[in-house]
This record gives sequence, structure tokens and C-alpha cells, in this order.
Amino acid sequence: MTDALPTGSTIGILGGGQLGRMLSVAASRLGFRTHIFEPSANPPAAHVADRVTTAPYDDLAALAAFAASVDVVTYEFENIPTAALDVLEKTHPIRPNRRALAVSQDRIAEKDFLTSLGLTTAPYAGVTTLDDLHHAITKIGTPAILKTTRLGYDGKGQARLKSPADAEAALAQMNGAPAVLEGFIDFSHEVSVIAARGTDGSVACYDPGENVHKDGILSTTTIPARLSPSQRTDAILLAARILNALDYVGVMGVELFVTRAGLIVNEIAPRVHNSGHWTQNGCAVDQFEQHIRAVAGWPLGDGARHSDVVMENLIGDDILRVPQIAREKNAALHLYGKAEARPGRKMGHVNRIVG
Amino acid sequence: MTDALPTGSTIGILGGGQLGRMLSVAASRLGFRTHIFEPSANPPAAHVADRVTTAPYDDLAALAAFAASVDVVTYEFENIPTAALDVLEKTHPIRPNRRALAVSQDRIAEKDFLTSLGLTTAPYAGVTTLDDLHHAITKIGTPAILKTTRLGYDGKGQARLKSPADAEAALAQMNGAPAVLEGFIDFSHEVSVIAARGTDGSVACYDPGENVHKDGILSTTTIPARLSPSQRTDAILLAARILNALDYVGVMGVELFVTRAGLIVNEIAPRVHNSGHWTQNGCAVDQFEQHIRAVAGWPLGDGARHSDVVMENLIGDDILRVPQIAREKNAALHLYGKAEARPGRKMGHVNRIVG
Repeated sequence: MTDALPTGSTIGILGGGQLGRMLSVAASRLGFRTHIFEPSANPPAAHVADRVTTAPYDDLAALAAFAASVDVVTYEFENIPTAALDVLEKTHPIRPNRRALAVSQDRIAEKDFLTSLGLTTAPYAGVTTLDDLHHAITKIGTPAILKTTRLGYDGKGQARLKSPADAEAALAQMNGAPAVLEGFIDFSHEVSVIAARGTDGSVACYDPGENVHKDGILSTTTIPARLSPSQRTDAILLAARILNALDYVGVMGVELFVTRAGLIVNEIAPRVHNSGHWTQNGCAVDQFEQHIRAVAGWPLGDGARHSDVVMENLIGDDILRVPQIAREKNAALHLYGKAEARPGRKMGHVNRIVG
Repeated sequence: MTDALPTGSTIGILGGGQLGRMLSVAASRLGFRTHIFEPSANPPAAHVADRVTTAPYDDLAALAAFAASVDVVTYEFENIPTAALDVLEKTHPIRPNRRALAVSQDRIAEKDFLTSLGLTTAPYAGVTTLDDLHHAITKIGTPAILKTTRLGYDGKGQARLKSPADAEAALAQMNGAPAVLEGFIDFSHEVSVIAARGTDGSVACYDPGENVHKDGILSTTTIPARLSPSQRTDAILLAARILNALDYVGVMGVELFVTRAGLIVNEIAPRVHNSGHWTQNGCAVDQFEQHIRAVAGWPLGDGARHSDVVMENLIGDDILRVPQIAREKNAALHLYGKAEARPGRKMGHVNRIVG
């Protein structure tokens, strides 16, 4: 732990949502303070942070002051503007590094990177014009999904093509943004690997979880996932290969489709991941602490699963079920302190210990 | 949950030490904010609280403003001045209630209360003068321990009497404060029950833990404790009797001596307790969340033990062992973010999952 940040150091976190909130709590367990940088007022992370800066990501003076007040910079979301990163990197390392951000900010760069490692992704082709889209359909076929290359999450910025006739309408939904057409994958289920890599190059993966989505938003993650022993090994080795190739430091979420032909990488997220929330009640060291340990230069902790868990997201009006959930046996609630429950908004989650 | 505080409410916490810190983190899991009232600057709880008031407990205006900003008041320590409680109670219920505080602030009131319930304590007698002490020694014998009736903790304000000849020196150590002479108990080991009671009168107890002290300070708590099934039942029923008798709301620590003649109550603490820290890694709902649930009028959560745990306090220079502990398997660190490691100061703890 020569280069490890000592207890009492300050972790700077870009983004004050629920991931920043749970990172801040995990940082406190190791004796760290946190400083949150977030454009919107009263973000969830502010309730449990030592300091908060409220400023937009193009306020470079605020960013510089933020950087000067912290010992390392990390983030809870991947769409950080390049100019902001330039300012921050003058003072401190950004962990995970900029290459991880660059690769994950752009669906085409991500798939190019993954295929360069010999990993399998959905067939894909970049699309800007209707002409591009027709060519892509010829190559990939339908059904297919057209997605903006940047800034998409939770099913936003996506259009399904059932047949080539849907091309024009799908492209219109991109609002002129560069897009990528992705071929349909015939998968039986989706799993994800929450993987961590330390500054010493060591890698630790949590047991893969099985994800179920509703309306494009993660609904449940069940641990352990339905995987054969060899699939499980494949999943973990594949995640480790991605982290090593990026010289990655921190926690990454790797979403995989399980198919008859093997595992296909859906996408990677260079941060703690919703499908890793189960670790809060299934492991001695959860994904949030693991991320803080990594970015602080500490040894990775023990992420072995001591309990089987089913994580359920509480989305929008699901928050109304909290009084019932609070009475359940073996249920651990994690609420995000958001004032308003809008449809599709993640309000909290519950980890049910099932064995 | 008719009278339950809704998510987003603010829990006021008197005291900003490590217990306040961990209460604040637990409150965040249920979507609550916390406001810490603490006389000293930069307390551990401030790093993870929404608001902090820095003022002494005799600043009644600061207390009134604090009370006006919160939805319920609780505390992390029992020695709150009466005048402070008077101000706070004008605005909000204090949970646990004042009777619990009154009983636990004074060793004689505590033992009078416990014996009135038919529970066994060490033989005791109030002592102010040397004459009192000689009479007490005649009644109780030696060896015995003389303790100030108020404000003692972690072995402070105590003097051992090996023989009647130690009387004068022991009394001098009380600095004129009212004291109590306690008879020696021949116990095999000490256990504690962390018990919770909700506003609906329901009681939930965690599995008793076995405590080992060093130099008068808790060193380790091992779960489960060495108890026969009937001793275990006795311990839990006894704790429940105490909580019901006080119409208690919140978590209480009940320390018990295990003797051939049965369980003897050492002392009670009307708050979360160091010997309950193991629950953070052994249960779906830990003692801190259980306390927040109770004072917020929520149903108690599931405190069933899913793992066996040994909790070790990190005291003073023990903090230097953190780099080694951080590499251990099955070890969960909880550091308090205190800048200076003085001898006897609790710097953190580690929960080792042992089964």
C-alpha cells in the first residue's frame, strides 16, 4: 500500500446520484471523506457527503477548485465532457482512466475495442444517413436495434426495426445523432460480471448475476446466475481481459448475453453498476467499497459471496411498496432519498437474502 | 406505519462520534437525512450527514433551532444535560425516552430499576463519604469496585478495592462525585444483548454476543456467545422485559455477566452499542438501521443472523494494522475517519465473517 491514500483523504466523485451516494457511504467505511461535483441541486449523494460543489460540467473554474480539494477523482457516470476531464487531469489521476471512458462513451468505439480483444459482440455498423442505414440493414438484417452512439442509457435513444420498412422512422428517432445498428441476438438470458482491478493490477470479480429488464430498465438481478461452470469461468476471464487491456483501475460492469454460441458482450460500464447492488448484502466487501479501494490504491477486498441474493429495483411508484417491504423477512432496503417518484426513476432497491 | 416518518424526513442526532456516523449512514439507506448536533469541531458523523450544528449542549438557542429543523430527535450517548432535553422535548419526541435516559445516566437509579423488575445486579450501595464507603464494604465485602454514579464509561471514573484498606485511596479517585460500591461478581464471561423495540411495542433482539475487554475497553465481540439454549432464552427475555418496562423506542445494549447462579445485569446503554457492531456484516438489518427504524416509527427489520462474526475494535495504534487487515479474507473494515490515534481511542473496527 505504498501509493495508497491514507485514511482521512478525500475522494472526489463526479456525479451525485444514487451511485455517488452509495460510493460516498462506502468511502466513509474506510475513513475517507468525499467531495461530490454535481450540476443539479440537492442530489442524493449530498446527504452523505462531506462536501458538495453545485456547478455545471462546463464550469472549468469550479472543476479546478474541486480538483484542488481532493486526492483522487472518480465518477459515477461515463458521459463526462472531455474539457472537464482535461481540467481535472492537470491535478490528479482520474480513475478509471480516460481510455475506459472514451471506449464506453461511444458504442462503436466500445464494440471496436471488444472485438479487437477477440470478444464477440452483436453484429454492428455505424449509421449517420438513411443510405448508411439501408447498407447496415443489408449487412446485419432485421430485426435489429438502432441506437445513438453516445449518451444512451436505460433504453433511451433506441429504436427497434422489425423490418427494413422501419428504417426511416427509426433514423428520425436519433434526431440527427450518429447511430449504430446492432443485430438481433438470440440469447436465453443476460448476466453481468462486476469486476474490479486495483492499482497493483490484481483483478477480483464478483459472482455473475442474472438480469431481468422491464421496459428497458433493470428490474432484478439474481445471484447466482444460471451458468454452467465453464460459462461462469468464461464470463470472469472475459471481464478480466477487458480490465487488463484498459489498464483499468476501479469497478466495471460487464453485461453479457448467454447464447448457444457462447457469451456475447452487450456493453461495458466503467463504474459501479446497478446489477452489482446485491453485493451490499451478499459479500463482506461490496462493489462500492471495492471501487473506492481500487481508486484509493488500496488492496482489493474480499468479494466472495456469503449469501445468495435477489436484488429488485424500486422504480417510480414501486416506492409505494416500501411499507410492505420494510416488514419482510430477509429484506434489506436501500432508498436513495429522491423527493419525487417519476415513472422510470430509480428510487431505491431491495436486496432479498434467499440462502 | 401510520405514524411512520416518510422517506425524506430528517433524523436529529445528538452526538457526532462513530455511533452517530454509523446511524447517519443507516438513516441514508432508508432515504432519511440526518442533522448532527455536536459540540466539537469536525466530528466523525459530519462526513456523512446532511447537516451539522456545532454548538455546546448548553446553547439552548442552537438546540431549539436544531429541533425545529428535524422530525425526531435521537442520540448516540446517554449523558445529555437535562436542560437540553427540556428544550428539545418542546418540539419533538426524544427517542429513546427520558426515563430510559434518567435510568441509565445514574448507576444507582439503573440498579434500583433493574432490581425492581426482579432482575439480578451486582450487590451495590451508594457512597458519598468515607463513612458511607466503610458501611458499604461491611455490607458488600471486598474485592469490590467503586464507580462514580454518573458519566463513567470505558473504565473511567472507577477504582478497585482489593481490601478495606483501599477505601480512602479509592474514594479520593471519585473527586468528590457521588459513587456506588459494586460487589465482585464471579462470572465466567460477559455477553450482551442488542435489543430493539418499535413504536408499536414489538421487540426484536439480535443473537447475544460474547465480549472480551482489555484495559476496561471492549476488545472483541464473538457471535454466537457461549450460552446454553436456556441461558440464551433468559438473556433475550430479560432484555425484552427491560425495554417493555421503559416503554422504550430504539436500540438498547444490555450487558450481562454469565455466572453459575444465572445471568446478572452489568449495565444497560440506551443507544446503539459497540458490542452490536457485528450486525453490520451478520444481518440483513444492522443495529444502526434497527434504531433508525424504531425512532422513525417504522416496523423493525429482520435482525436474524445470516453469518457468524467476530468483531474486533481497532483502538489507538491498532489503526496501523489497517494495511494488513485490508488484505484479509472475509474481513469488513469500518473506520471512523478520526485524524489522531490517541491511546484508548476507538479508531474503527473490523468484522470478520467466520461462518
